[in-house]
Amino acid sequence: MLIHSVYFWFKADADPALVARFEAGLQRLTAIPDIQAAHFGRPETTPKRPVIDDSYSWALIETFPDLAAHDRYQAHELHQQFLEEFSGTWQRVQVYDVRV
Amino acid sequence: MLIHSVYFWFKADADPALVARFEAGLQRLTAIPDIQAAHFGRPETTPKRPVIDDSYSWALIETFPDLAAHDRYQAHELHQQFLEEFSGTWQRVQVYDVRV
Repeated sequence: MLIHSVYFWFKADADPALVARFEAGLQRLTAIPDIQAAHFGRPETTPKRPVIDDSYSWALIETFPDLAAHDRYQAHELHQQFLEEFSGTWQRVQVYDVRV
Repeated sequence: MLIHSVYFWFKADADPALVARFEAGLQRLTAIPDIQAAHFGRPETTPKRPVIDDSYSWALIETFPDLAAHDRYQAHELHQQFLEEFSGTWQRVQVYDVRV
């Protein structure tokens, strides 16, 4: 199984209307059929520790049965639409793909 | 629900015997009863992109029903033993706690 985690930071001058629509955009992404499980959310208020990064705005954590399913997800029209709509708002994106 | 993700990088001079035992240490951690689901693994060979960090050695991704369960996990004896055994081998640890 593959766990695909993505952390998003918005630009300071990102369009507020787009930022406000971002959660709905994440929700639409999760309809892509190759996804086994999808969760998205914001930083939890765990006690501050130097090892914790809670500076991101949104996180998306998805599981795929295998790498081929992940690759189909990346190429899917809904994913391409998501990138087209929102990628201009991101200052930073950090991805971790873990084989578990 | 809380998704607690931890990425581990070993020191270049970490004790090879400890490094070899690390996977078994992760496995023991997952016995802590407050964990809802736990997965651990290594970087998947997704196509290289600048946004992907695949430089870590191991990742641990756990879900908890709530923050209180996570806090009990952090304090659990098995977690404390894990820290005591392995924390000296880590060059870097990166944690993301996401409320989903």
